[in-house]
Amino acid sequence: MSPQPQWVLTQTQDHICTLTLNRPQAYNALSNPLMQTLLNTLRTLANQKDCRVIIIKGEGRGFCAGHDLKELTETKRDTDYYQQTFSLCSELMQQIQRQPQPVIAQVHGIATAAGCQLVASCDLAIADTQTRFATPGVNIGLFCSTPMVALSRTLSKKHALEMLLLGDMISAQDAYRMGLVNLVVEPDDLEQQVQTWAQKLAGKSAYTLKVGKEAFYRQAEMPIADAYRYCSQVMTNNIQAKDAREGIGALLEKRTPHWSHSA
Amino acid sequence: MSPQPQWVLTQTQDHICTLTLNRPQAYNALSNPLMQTLLNTLRTLANQKDCRVIIIKGEGRGFCAGHDLKELTETKRDTDYYQQTFSLCSELMQQIQRQPQPVIAQVHGIATAAGCQLVASCDLAIADTQTRFATPGVNIGLFCSTPMVALSRTLSKKHALEMLLLGDMISAQDAYRMGLVNLVVEPDDLEQQVQTWAQKLAGKSAYTLKVGKEAFYRQAEMPIADAYRYCSQVMTNNIQAKDAREGIGALLEKRTPHWSHSA
Amino acid sequence: MSPQPQWVLTQTQDHICTLTLNRPQAYNALSNPLMQTLLNTLRTLANQKDCRVIIIKGEGRGFCAGHDLKELTETKRDTDYYQQTFSLCSELMQQIQRQPQPVIAQVHGIATAAGCQLVASCDLAIADTQTRFATPGVNIGLFCSTPMVALSRTLSKKHALEMLLLGDMISAQDAYRMGLVNLVVEPDDLEQQVQTWAQKLAGKSAYTLKVGKEAFYRQAEMPIADAYRYCSQVMTNNIQAKDAREGIGALLEKRTPHWSHSA
Repeated sequence: MSPQPQWVLTQTQDHICTLTLNRPQAYNALSNPLMQTLLNTLRTLANQKDCRVIIIKGEGRGFCAGHDLKELTETKRDTDYYQQTFSLCSELMQQIQRQPQPVIAQVHGIATAAGCQLVASCDLAIADTQTRFATPGVNIGLFCSTPMVALSRTLSKKHALEMLLLGDMISAQDAYRMGLVNLVVEPDDLEQQVQTWAQKLAGKSAYTLKVGKEAFYRQAEMPIADAYRYCSQVMTNNIQAKDAREGIGALLEKRTPHWSHSA
Repeated sequence: MSPQPQWVLTQTQDHICTLTLNRPQAYNALSNPLMQTLLNTLRTLANQKDCRVIIIKGEGRGFCAGHDLKELTETKRDTDYYQQTFSLCSELMQQIQRQPQPVIAQVHGIATAAGCQLVASCDLAIADTQTRFATPGVNIGLFCSTPMVALSRTLSKKHALEMLLLGDMISAQDAYRMGLVNLVVEPDDLEQQVQTWAQKLAGKSAYTLKVGKEAFYRQAEMPIADAYRYCSQVMTNNIQAKDAREGIGALLEKRTPHWSHSA
Repeated sequence: MSPQPQWVLTQTQDHICTLTLNRPQAYNALSNPLMQTLLNTLRTLANQKDCRVIIIKGEGRGFCAGHDLKELTETKRDTDYYQQTFSLCSELMQQIQRQPQPVIAQVHGIATAAGCQLVASCDLAIADTQTRFATPGVNIGLFCSTPMVALSRTLSKKHALEMLLLGDMISAQDAYRMGLVNLVVEPDDLEQQVQTWAQKLAGKSAYTLKVGKEAFYRQAEMPIADAYRYCSQVMTNNIQAKDAREGIGALLEKRTPHWSHSA
């Protein structure tokens, strides 16, 4: 019996957990086993104190080419199968938002269809100058409808529609201009730049990152008056937590804070 | 009896339908007859299989100067008249979103007030470098309140308020920076660039464009969890339609797809 | 008995009201007395016909450094105190939106935490090239959760999260790229550029600015169909008001309008 393939490689160092999509021969296409593995891994990491920041990257020539078309179109696929597949994918993308740790996409090569959605779904994204992005489903008769949920909440209307309707590859520079990625660096600098951000995040209070990230996505869907009421409550709790008292004390006393990473 | 003026010229070639606003002496101001004609034309085109993409452009020196102020201020206009006028305009703008075909604005000269709203309401927009944009209602005591519905869903907050409160003309480059248009090209290249995008869109499955565009605007107004549920359903239906099976098959077999353009 | 400190300096000239945050020794940190004074001042100005535009700026080396950490962390602060403080701050930020006059932030030096929120909350903002912006709460264990309500309604998702999660200072140029400020000018030109915009706004109908600004923020939270219904009503009322009849008449007769500034 051959060992089960490792669809996602997990490596944790200095509180930074790197998840590497590992189907390089298929441009890390999101097969159902890969998606389920990634989702399970994220859920497990959610409760691991040792993990303070997550990096998602791809093995081989590209970040991620989206769904696995061969898997999707095998014989005897039915409505239930498709429903489950797209639900699994949607669950995965929403788990990234629910994740208590910040999630950074380290993007190279290509990020297309659900792979582009993965970039949009991460909290932060850094790409190298050679990366190309697309939501090309429209070219094969299958509109990138689930990717557009993430895309249209990250890009402005005309930019999202340009990608979705034309289905063309766009450059890293255009992705930067549109706000799909935070930073574009030379290919040789990608790994180091992502590490720099990850180390910076790992040095902060995990409790505070969790509180802030959760509040960010919740308040974003509220009317502004409700958002202010909710976030005032969040800050009232936050400021009375151990890490805030330590952090403010350290600032006033001009020393380095020591986080307990808990409330 | 003189023939009825042709407020909107309609030309269809190679599945691309070009609608030309035709009041050049008035910078194509949106008189009620012109708006009603454009709305009726769009509704008729919605059911025409021959039409796969729509271009809206303006005859003469500019794209569109907004409402027809002379018409609006003739004697004996009353509340009912204004209500009907602004409702007609709002209906027209929303019809562009409801239109099953992608709608491209080909913008030159000026696009002001409801003319700027028309640009914001189209799915895609290309302008030439000489074009100027404004929502100048504030300068004549009549705030561009209906235009801002489209503007504030296309631009970010500060950019929309800058246009609305100051009422100044902005350049095509600024419109590009703010995301009001997708592309800015030299005046001599405008027609060709719009045709290039239109031909690209006309070569795609009309069924898929319709499904995707409808889902885009519907999901945009939902909380993210609902949006994912809805779009998962849309993709489940889409992938089992003729054109998706054909498109995916063509991709895997490395041949050109032949669309039926139907579900 | 020493006189009460003037937390906010108020100066009105040519219908432009300039509010200067006046705690220069503390980078104009938002102590509760300062916030309450600013809120009261804004509420009073809301009913003053003489005031047609408001500028908020900071005395000394910077615009505003956010909450006053020393005040926040004095002994015997309890949940009620924090709740009141963050509610007061949230009320202040929402009052800027409710204010009938346009509010311009004149930003120099630094704008951090709730000071950055203040910039995001103003209708318009102009900064000089040397200004730096940050939401650095995450660095002291206290996530900028109320600031993010304003930030996430002004910047796109990835940009807001970049500021909030990393907590780093960003340049005026980056703030411009992200849409946090409308314009960046040389330090020597800041005052004059803000005055130019303020004078432009002061020359418009105060009634029209009030109607438009109120409608902007209300419609922004509605589904598009509701927004169009509401704004059609707003325009129907607006066009029948004195200032619109005067403004349209002046335009058609090619003369300067004389505003009554009332409905």
